[in-house]
Amino acid sequence: MRIETDCVGSLAIPDKALYGIHAARAQQNFPISSEKTDVALMKNIVLIKQAAAVVNQQAGTLDSQKSRAIIRACQDVLSGKYDDQFVVAAIQGGAGTSANMNVNEVVANVAGQYTAIVIHPNDDVNQSQSTNDVFPTAGKMTLLQLYPALRQQLQRLVHVLLDRAETFKDAVKVGRTQLQDAVPTTFGNSFHAYYSLFKRDLQRVNQAVDVLRNVNLGGTAIGTGLNASEFYREHIVDEVNDLTGVKLVVSEDKIDATQNCDALAAFSSSLKMLSLDLIKLSNDLRLLGSGPQAGLCELRLPAVQAGSSIMPGKVNPVIPEVVNQVAFQVIGYDTTVSLAVQAGQLELNAFEPVIFKDLIDGEAILTGALETLVTRCLEGIQVNAEYGKEQVEKSAISATVLAPVIGYERAMNLVKQAIRQKKSVKTLLKTQAIMSDEQIDYLFSTQHLINRPNDKRYVKVVN
Amino acid sequence: MRIETDCVGSLAIPDKALYGIHAARAQQNFPISSEKTDVALMKNIVLIKQAAAVVNQQAGTLDSQKSRAIIRACQDVLSGKYDDQFVVAAIQGGAGTSANMNVNEVVANVAGQYTAIVIHPNDDVNQSQSTNDVFPTAGKMTLLQLYPALRQQLQRLVHVLLDRAETFKDAVKVGRTQLQDAVPTTFGNSFHAYYSLFKRDLQRVNQAVDVLRNVNLGGTAIGTGLNASEFYREHIVDEVNDLTGVKLVVSEDKIDATQNCDALAAFSSSLKMLSLDLIKLSNDLRLLGSGPQAGLCELRLPAVQAGSSIMPGKVNPVIPEVVNQVAFQVIGYDTTVSLAVQAGQLELNAFEPVIFKDLIDGEAILTGALETLVTRCLEGIQVNAEYGKEQVEKSAISATVLAPVIGYERAMNLVKQAIRQKKSVKTLLKTQAIMSDEQIDYLFSTQHLINRPNDKRYVKVVN
Amino acid sequence: MRIETDCVGSLAIPDKALYGIHAARAQQNFPISSEKTDVALMKNIVLIKQAAAVVNQQAGTLDSQKSRAIIRACQDVLSGKYDDQFVVAAIQGGAGTSANMNVNEVVANVAGQYTAIVIHPNDDVNQSQSTNDVFPTAGKMTLLQLYPALRQQLQRLVHVLLDRAETFKDAVKVGRTQLQDAVPTTFGNSFHAYYSLFKRDLQRVNQAVDVLRNVNLGGTAIGTGLNASEFYREHIVDEVNDLTGVKLVVSEDKIDATQNCDALAAFSSSLKMLSLDLIKLSNDLRLLGSGPQAGLCELRLPAVQAGSSIMPGKVNPVIPEVVNQVAFQVIGYDTTVSLAVQAGQLELNAFEPVIFKDLIDGEAILTGALETLVTRCLEGIQVNAEYGKEQVEKSAISATVLAPVIGYERAMNLVKQAIRQKKSVKTLLKTQAIMSDEQIDYLFSTQHLINRPNDKRYVKVVN
Amino acid sequence: MRIETDCVGSLAIPDKALYGIHAARAQQNFPISSEKTDVALMKNIVLIKQAAAVVNQQAGTLDSQKSRAIIRACQDVLSGKYDDQFVVAAIQGGAGTSANMNVNEVVANVAGQYTAIVIHPNDDVNQSQSTNDVFPTAGKMTLLQLYPALRQQLQRLVHVLLDRAETFKDAVKVGRTQLQDAVPTTFGNSFHAYYSLFKRDLQRVNQAVDVLRNVNLGGTAIGTGLNASEFYREHIVDEVNDLTGVKLVVSEDKIDATQNCDALAAFSSSLKMLSLDLIKLSNDLRLLGSGPQAGLCELRLPAVQAGSSIMPGKVNPVIPEVVNQVAFQVIGYDTTVSLAVQAGQLELNAFEPVIFKDLIDGEAILTGALETLVTRCLEGIQVNAEYGKEQVEKSAISATVLAPVIGYERAMNLVKQAIRQKKSVKTLLKTQAIMSDEQIDYLFSTQHLINRPNDKRYVKVVN
Repeated sequence: MRIETDCVGSLAIPDKALYGIHAARAQQNFPISSEKTDVALMKNIVLIKQAAAVVNQQAGTLDSQKSRAIIRACQDVLSGKYDDQFVVAAIQGGAGTSANMNVNEVVANVAGQYTAIVIHPNDDVNQSQSTNDVFPTAGKMTLLQLYPALRQQLQRLVHVLLDRAETFKDAVKVGRTQLQDAVPTTFGNSFHAYYSLFKRDLQRVNQAVDVLRNVNLGGTAIGTGLNASEFYREHIVDEVNDLTGVKLVVSEDKIDATQNCDALAAFSSSLKMLSLDLIKLSNDLRLLGSGPQAGLCELRLPAVQAGSSIMPGKVNPVIPEVVNQVAFQVIGYDTTVSLAVQAGQLELNAFEPVIFKDLIDGEAILTGALETLVTRCLEGIQVNAEYGKEQVEKSAISATVLAPVIGYERAMNLVKQAIRQKKSVKTLLKTQAIMSDEQIDYLFSTQHLINRPNDKRYVKVVN
Repeated sequence: MRIETDCVGSLAIPDKALYGIHAARAQQNFPISSEKTDVALMKNIVLIKQAAAVVNQQAGTLDSQKSRAIIRACQDVLSGKYDDQFVVAAIQGGAGTSANMNVNEVVANVAGQYTAIVIHPNDDVNQSQSTNDVFPTAGKMTLLQLYPALRQQLQRLVHVLLDRAETFKDAVKVGRTQLQDAVPTTFGNSFHAYYSLFKRDLQRVNQAVDVLRNVNLGGTAIGTGLNASEFYREHIVDEVNDLTGVKLVVSEDKIDATQNCDALAAFSSSLKMLSLDLIKLSNDLRLLGSGPQAGLCELRLPAVQAGSSIMPGKVNPVIPEVVNQVAFQVIGYDTTVSLAVQAGQLELNAFEPVIFKDLIDGEAILTGALETLVTRCLEGIQVNAEYGKEQVEKSAISATVLAPVIGYERAMNLVKQAIRQKKSVKTLLKTQAIMSDEQIDYLFSTQHLINRPNDKRYVKVVN
Repeated sequence: MRIETDCVGSLAIPDKALYGIHAARAQQNFPISSEKTDVALMKNIVLIKQAAAVVNQQAGTLDSQKSRAIIRACQDVLSGKYDDQFVVAAIQGGAGTSANMNVNEVVANVAGQYTAIVIHPNDDVNQSQSTNDVFPTAGKMTLLQLYPALRQQLQRLVHVLLDRAETFKDAVKVGRTQLQDAVPTTFGNSFHAYYSLFKRDLQRVNQAVDVLRNVNLGGTAIGTGLNASEFYREHIVDEVNDLTGVKLVVSEDKIDATQNCDALAAFSSSLKMLSLDLIKLSNDLRLLGSGPQAGLCELRLPAVQAGSSIMPGKVNPVIPEVVNQVAFQVIGYDTTVSLAVQAGQLELNAFEPVIFKDLIDGEAILTGALETLVTRCLEGIQVNAEYGKEQVEKSAISATVLAPVIGYERAMNLVKQAIRQKKSVKTLLKTQAIMSDEQIDYLFSTQHLINRPNDKRYVKVVN
Repeated sequence: MRIETDCVGSLAIPDKALYGIHAARAQQNFPISSEKTDVALMKNIVLIKQAAAVVNQQAGTLDSQKSRAIIRACQDVLSGKYDDQFVVAAIQGGAGTSANMNVNEVVANVAGQYTAIVIHPNDDVNQSQSTNDVFPTAGKMTLLQLYPALRQQLQRLVHVLLDRAETFKDAVKVGRTQLQDAVPTTFGNSFHAYYSLFKRDLQRVNQAVDVLRNVNLGGTAIGTGLNASEFYREHIVDEVNDLTGVKLVVSEDKIDATQNCDALAAFSSSLKMLSLDLIKLSNDLRLLGSGPQAGLCELRLPAVQAGSSIMPGKVNPVIPEVVNQVAFQVIGYDTTVSLAVQAGQLELNAFEPVIFKDLIDGEAILTGALETLVTRCLEGIQVNAEYGKEQVEKSAISATVLAPVIGYERAMNLVKQAIRQKKSVKTLLKTQAIMSDEQIDYLFSTQHLINRPNDKRYVKVVN
């Protein structure tokens, strides 16, 4: 064990530890769970350290030897071989200071192996930086890096829904409002509606992600940039961008960007809205796929696993079910994020660790959920076209088409009569001398029921 | 107009106004909406004033003439004829001070009509009191007074569900897990499960309401009871109880009771849980009542209004739908209450006005929702017993009963075969030489499917 | 009483009632609370009726005499003299059918006074329409009409914050991160940060409102447009726009627009984010304004009313407090809206009534809250500039500026020494031979502390 | 690789895998995140398998050889050496079937090593069971097993708060309502109020946990108990209790217990309420501990780590901060649990996996948060008694004690004068001929200010 000292006192640190007293204290202070701070986020902190070492050297505030050692250490750490040195919990007090200091300490200790000069975690590795600009910047970088995968799955979702809409465009089915039989529609219409919906979600999430590019890096402790040279403040974000390919932009008001997490709340909201819509879709899929005998039986979801340990041959809609649950989880995360965002005070929001934890996990699990939804459910989904057609043909509510012709009340009586007598409205109608059979056939043709055409045969007979 | 003055300055008040400068300022300060503070809550404040006038007189801190005038004024105000003088918004800053002062002013001005002595709103009407003990006490009184109506409807709900369970106890139906056909059950089972559920809700709400009896009245500003005589502190709650019949209890720790609103959060939680369960029930009712042709068609909800302005003869499950919405509203209120409760600081929670507003409305709309749910839906609900029986008979998943006899895998193959060939498992089975017809009939008897009896005929034939 | 009949049966209606059987049944079915459907929303339904009467007449599906009578009746109803005939509850089952039918019935009955021909509520007044396109369109119109007032107050907020930022730009103060003293800042910085924040909120709400313009009017029951003529479908939205000045746009996918409420969820989210940010602002105002003696005492909020019924001379931050509560309420509404949005099923979301209720109220109360926040708090807010300056001068944490010069650890020891000895770091430093007094004075100059300038005097002396 | 077959088809399974086709498919179907189903929950499923093997053998439905092999296999699996065979994701579709089947498969394969007879995962290991009774029972067992640790920390919290209340009972301080100076109190009062608060939380959580003992084990698929022998149904829960020491109780209505998750919602609510209260406490600690110079400076929280990577000597309230975040997380989990609970349909709630995931994590992180709050913050917390006393002495609002003597308005004027002239009210009062100095000293004595005693010296001088 070696002894290290800080403003609180001294502490014994395991000899092999590359982290130092700050991370060691954080381990003791935050025994919350086994979940550590996301490794990708930690590595983004390392990347900022590397960029800072470059820019500080150029600014003349860090000598070349130190700079080189730090850069080399960062590259080493990024290779993954010191991942076990990232020891601080995901949920931590201190606004991310423990995560930042953990990196400062590891990088300083690794860098120390490459040079005779002492590399100080604060004065050198953390030079020109504060947790308060480094941590949220690294967090946003992580969210941005996760996004292409989410966007890809969202695009796949949009695409497969459009594809299904085209495939099923002629397959008619009973429409349902308030779970009661309504006028007919097509499976194509239904899938096109989902397509339209998720196209908007894609756009909403895109917009929210774009705002995450604004960072306060260079603002140091509270956004004023104290202790960072002007050169550093002007170049650090470009250097990070060059190093990572993430297109960050310096916030116009770094004081604001340091204390306000509304961009994170907005991103969270966009994930929540996506989740609300995924619940609607999943519920519809599960409902229309209910059966196989005593259900609505309109959709056939691909069978992907046995459904029951006790009921042989049962197959369940497990893919929409897992999507439901991911959606519930992400909506819960939005509650957490909202609480944390509103709790920010004065020059800082101290609750960023839990915000980033939940957003990183939320983005990841939505990606996984969409991937399996598209691959294992929607790509192979089939409709029960014959059954849908039969249902439409026997549906009394189709008599709605008669309302403009014979009036709401007479149509209503026909509907009631049809259901009571278990006959079709069409059949009943033909026994009455209201319209010609041809007119009746036209009104009840699928084409007319689904989308009234623009022709002259539509005649108001009675009112 | 008359001019009144307070620590902020002077203000012109309409001559006819019985309220004074405080309420007038509050009107200006809180132009939030047209919704005023709940009248029942305001009247409970008046009742506390009346009780305080009695007790303060007995304590010797308020002279008899003033006491009599205040008591008479309170009775007048309680009669309802000055309700229009309650002018402060439901959502108000100031932790309820405006509501309390509005009452103090109205009572003082009305009392002034009965005596030559000046009655001061603070020194006399508010004597021994603070908003911080009066307002939450009046709020809790209001919730307690609303409760018998809610409890009655909840009891009616429990009762009607048990009644339905008994009525439908022999009506079999397909069970469904994950919306897929599962082993059979009865409508009686289903309604009994709802009965069991809401019995627990009744118990949970009861428990939470009971805790609301604890009040900090006598604690004045922060719970220390400063400026209230010991006599007052010992007798005020009894006097309020005598006057109102509400069984309040003095909190053991009035400092705590003044600053912590956890009892309100707990009551809100109990309403939220009731709401979650009402959603489950309403969703089930709407789902099982779906149809009339292309749905599950198992339940027949009473038709209570025409369902569509365009589709003649359509009838919708509007009662469960309104219950769903009330539940959504109450769950939203719980979010508001939770936010307000956690935002309390130090010696007071300043956000009680919105807490009481939402709880009062929540309790009321749940009462209304339950009333219509019982009266207009559950009391008249019918089951489609014939259809339920048919569904059970043709259900392949009943083959589950074979699993202990012929094993999971052979049973599974029979299920798949039955669905594919559109035959019943029973029929298929009889063509195979596995069991006797008698044994088969027994296994597939409704009685056996629903609840396996304790007899010897159950034999494991093959494994 | 007169007797009316519908598909459910017969009902006695008060003779004077202009509404009919549908509204009467709805009154019985939804005894939820005294809150009726928003009158502005009801009038937007009337406006759609009026526009439909115009377009249907042009389409040749409604004769001129009926059309004229309906138009005249609509104008009458819009004048407000029949507002008491709008009797259906705000929270109603049936997806708004009761609200729509209430209007159909009132308009039909009023129109009937102007013509000998029978005007039918469904066949004539509701011609080419369904609740499912009329109700959400009217709801969105209401939200759009309320928006200019909200936008104006939000713009005022942004403006006053910028104005305060400019006024206070030289007033220094201690920065605080995690509620602990941090490096200095200015009140100007603080208010500018709020300005930046709410500028984004304005933009977010603007964007969300814009999407509300997309409506499904013409889609009738499920978006297919069944029973509406092509002429009607092409012209109805233009006619509504001409009549009202609201710039609606026909949705590209009316099937989607009929069943998905994501635009409403997105609008709700934008209000929620505004609310989160208002909580942050209000909390900061209340915290910085704490005192008058034992608080932070940095801000002086205008005194707008006496603060206590018991503590004389107390003045409370009642305006931020009411803003907090409105924000809590709106966040709760977002929970309700989210629950309702995800609960939509198949071709319709039946829960629109509660969604519109909460959004309409949310938009209105936010408008009121912002109005009072700007007028009664921010416009008159003052800073305690002298006190702020004193705090900065004695603040030990200013020693942060020394870290780049003498290193983190030596600076840390100076801070600890300064706090322990109750001396300023500057004074301590001058007794040590580390730097010249000139250099020290420069480093600790307000100008340097607030925002490090771009000059050459910054020299790293020791490392 | 070996080939296994189920109702969906065939799949290659790694030769070394002890899990089978079901778990393998689940791995493919639920690529949600790296988080697997909680190991403790999986082991509780194993324990149920072991108990079932005992009881089924006694019931005569499982032969002794199989029973012995299964029991031995369960013991092996419980030893932890096959933990890597638990491969299914925490968030999984299928209501837990994949978790249950994963265990069935592993146990069957391990058991197969001990006997020549084939052990079937469904027919033997899962005999008399269904996922629908096994999974929620195992989940509840896990929550019950985690509870003693949470209860212990909650008890420690209650105890330390009472201890602090006693220690600080004479330390006076300014009370604050709405963050404005109010009448005085003591630190003892403050900590006693927290003590009272968390005593209630302890009681609430206790009650909610107790309800979790009710399980549906023996109910199999939907609660009817189909395919379980009567002997099994009567003895399985006792056997589980004997094996584990968890005191489960068989639900009176297993149909209900299988479909309704309200007990889980109630447990979640109790954790949420605890979280709301922890936020209040943490916020107060952070606020009263603000400083060290420009804050309220009343509390001194133990310094547990350096506070800043850039500001030397800064120490932050990291322990309350981490408590805040854990509370936000748990409240978010409650949102998720609520959504999942209300989404249950008909005979089952398919969303139990995410419910148990969040409750298990929530219970664990609250335990960790409380542990660090007590150990690293509250046990060492100190008050700034001298400073508190000074604040009380100079506080103008103490003039509240004069109101009953000289009236509200004269007292108000004195307060305003005192603040304006920066004199104490007491000093001002002595220059006026209202009361004797003795009377003044008595009124302003700490003892009187804190809690008015029961004596005769209290005289109303003027009114």
